Amino acid sequence: MNAWIVSIGYELLMGQVVNTNAAYLGQRLTTLGFDVQKIVTISDQIEQIEQTLQQAQSRVHLVVATGGLGPTSDDLTKKALVDFFGGDLQLNQQALEQVKRFLQLRDQQLTQLQYEQAMVPSSARVIPNPYGTAPGLWFEQGGTVFVFMPGVPFEMQQMFEQNVEPLLRRYFDLPQVYVQIVHTYGKLEAQLAEILKDFEAQLPRQVKLAYLPSPEDIKIKLWTYGPDANEIRDLVEEQVAKLRRILGDTVWGVGDVTMPQVVLDLFVNHGLTLSTAESCTGGNIAHLITSVSGSSQYYKGTVVAYSNEVKKSVLRVSAQDLDKFGAVSQPVVEQMAQGVRSLLKTDFAVATSGIAGPTGGTPEKPVGTVWIAVATPERVFSSKFRFGNRRDINIRKSSAMALYQLILRVKQYLGLAK
Amino acid sequence: MNAWIVSIGYELLMGQVVNTNAAYLGQRLTTLGFDVQKIVTISDQIEQIEQTLQQAQSRVHLVVATGGLGPTSDDLTKKALVDFFGGDLQLNQQALEQVKRFLQLRDQQLTQLQYEQAMVPSSARVIPNPYGTAPGLWFEQGGTVFVFMPGVPFEMQQMFEQNVEPLLRRYFDLPQVYVQIVHTYGKLEAQLAEILKDFEAQLPRQVKLAYLPSPEDIKIKLWTYGPDANEIRDLVEEQVAKLRRILGDTVWGVGDVTMPQVVLDLFVNHGLTLSTAESCTGGNIAHLITSVSGSSQYYKGTVVAYSNEVKKSVLRVSAQDLDKFGAVSQPVVEQMAQGVRSLLKTDFAVATSGIAGPTGGTPEKPVGTVWIAVATPERVFSSKFRFGNRRDINIRKSSAMALYQLILRVKQYLGLAK
Repeated sequence: MNAWIVSIGYELLMGQVVNTNAAYLGQRLTTLGFDVQKIVTISDQIEQIEQTLQQAQSRVHLVVATGGLGPTSDDLTKKALVDFFGGDLQLNQQALEQVKRFLQLRDQQLTQLQYEQAMVPSSARVIPNPYGTAPGLWFEQGGTVFVFMPGVPFEMQQMFEQNVEPLLRRYFDLPQVYVQIVHTYGKLEAQLAEILKDFEAQLPRQVKLAYLPSPEDIKIKLWTYGPDANEIRDLVEEQVAKLRRILGDTVWGVGDVTMPQVVLDLFVNHGLTLSTAESCTGGNIAHLITSVSGSSQYYKGTVVAYSNEVKKSVLRVSAQDLDKFGAVSQPVVEQMAQGVRSLLKTDFAVATSGIAGPTGGTPEKPVGTVWIAVATPERVFSSKFRFGNRRDINIRKSSAMALYQLILRVKQYLGLAK
Repeated sequence: MNAWIVSIGYELLMGQVVNTNAAYLGQRLTTLGFDVQKIVTISDQIEQIEQTLQQAQSRVHLVVATGGLGPTSDDLTKKALVDFFGGDLQLNQQALEQVKRFLQLRDQQLTQLQYEQAMVPSSARVIPNPYGTAPGLWFEQGGTVFVFMPGVPFEMQQMFEQNVEPLLRRYFDLPQVYVQIVHTYGKLEAQLAEILKDFEAQLPRQVKLAYLPSPEDIKIKLWTYGPDANEIRDLVEEQVAKLRRILGDTVWGVGDVTMPQVVLDLFVNHGLTLSTAESCTGGNIAHLITSVSGSSQYYKGTVVAYSNEVKKSVLRVSAQDLDKFGAVSQPVVEQMAQGVRSLLKTDFAVATSGIAGPTGGTPEKPVGTVWIAVATPERVFSSKFRFGNRRDINIRKSSAMALYQLILRVKQYLGLAK
């Protein structure tokens, strides 16, 4: 089953907006079993749209298009659709009712622009938009299905998941798919590939594997297709279990989770509390932790001690140690963790101190040097790391490493890890 | 001058990577004066690459392609290039020297894979890669220029700015372009458009205007082309000055700046210091401030007081007021700002307290309600805002609003604003 993704909008061509819609659809369609062969971005000019649809019709089974359906720009796209698919623009009662309901909930009046959004090509089937006023459109022509959705990412995603995906599953008789993600931290992609050479060699042919690296972690994606949901789940999960045995603590999570979510689950499930003291990460760890709803159940707060005075006065770091070893040192980072733990009265605490760069490095402590400490109810652990030269990447890597170290130490404390 | 952008890589089609390269190139090429008509993403299959190049050659003056030149994948791309442009793969001495120099700096040995990166089509001109081992390639055929660059964003950007842009300027005899960005905050796009109706109507025809909205701000981009650099600069800057007069304090910056940079400049230039106390923004303000190198010159730190105990014990917020008015209230946010200002001994302090959501809202204080306070050396200012229902957007909007309020109050304090 071949597919194209078509993105419509001059703002994409001019680079004013990054095309996250295409990445989202690429992932969803691939997971559904489609082979995405091309992504085409064009402006909302009638000729361009028609030409692209023409090319697609002779080549693929499915075209999913986004954009060009907003209140100010949909005339051209809809005109191109009527030209290409036939029919004329007619008021769609179902679409109009939805626009009205949407506006009613927000105490807004129907404007002419919004009324016109309910005018759709008579050759189309209307796809409801649960979170906006522009309806989606579904056409079938020459053996190809064409789906048009609005370009606002949140509206588009909700429409795709709630309404388009079920239609595609019914129309195309798609195979079942089972996907699992194994999250790792602390190893480079080349190191993981080396460790997993034998694992990859023994992998059943129908199970696919991909490495998805980012500064924060390397995800290992395993997936397979088949007619039987239980069978394909077991097939993948058996390999996931093997992976976990081979990689041990390198795996910090499995499935649709993030590190802050794993931390939240660990702390909330065991009734523990956390505080943080950040220097080089400058509040980013706190930001990651509090990005998850429910974090106030276990997280008491952070002290970002960007200056040495704050390290001394608020966190009670020894002035003598600061002078003797410098702020980026083992004694200081350990005292920061202990200091915030007793100040905010929590079970655990994490602290960071390092040189994010681009300036501030020395021959002994080059840019990218970071100390991370975890204070537990029993003792303090600390380690030194050396990341790269880029400030933004150093902050992201240090924050992820701090959360990773925290997960490790909490699991050890709870007897859940070696 | 028409251009296409071609992105090569199955990871883009599968949505494992968001295509930021295309957005970057769209922006650079548009600014150079090219009309980007299409962005095509394909996998590194010979047939696909050749077909795309063939289509482009009959339609546009310039094709800029990225990806498919890495150490593990470049065979197919290079084979397609030799098929399409003629010649054969030959060792390029200049490229080999550069690979060797690159590895030497990193104390690494030359491997077979890296040696092969210096094998390039004899029909190509080699473009040096300042930050990697894969060289770029430049071809001319049928009146079209084709540029191929590696897909790693940082390498590609450096190669484009240092080496490709100068070549394009020479080859195409491009017009001068002058771009200016005016950053605003606090007004919706529709409100801005209403205020600027007359301004837009009087805008000289050759000056283009675009609104670029994001949760953090709305940028107004003004640009023009012409033969004379001074003339086009004056033409745009005259309009920028008008905009500033019309919009007043809604404009927080002009040019290639971010809010945290504007804050840094204000504080450092006037020898002031800052601290923050965050509740609902959970450390994000500190993260934004410390993302800018040099922030340690003025920023002392933050206390993220996620729990009421921390608000009381560390920030000295009155227990009575917390009970009476709740954490999300004017007295509490003002005491947080004053508390952190005296704790960290700074000139200014910012505090936030709100309901980021998705849970925790009440009829009187729905999700998205946020109090923001700015403590100056003279007094405390505070205001209540109502953002939306999404946690991530609420955190971003609250952080931007806090920085915006801070800029306003500091300017007033310094006599730089009303």
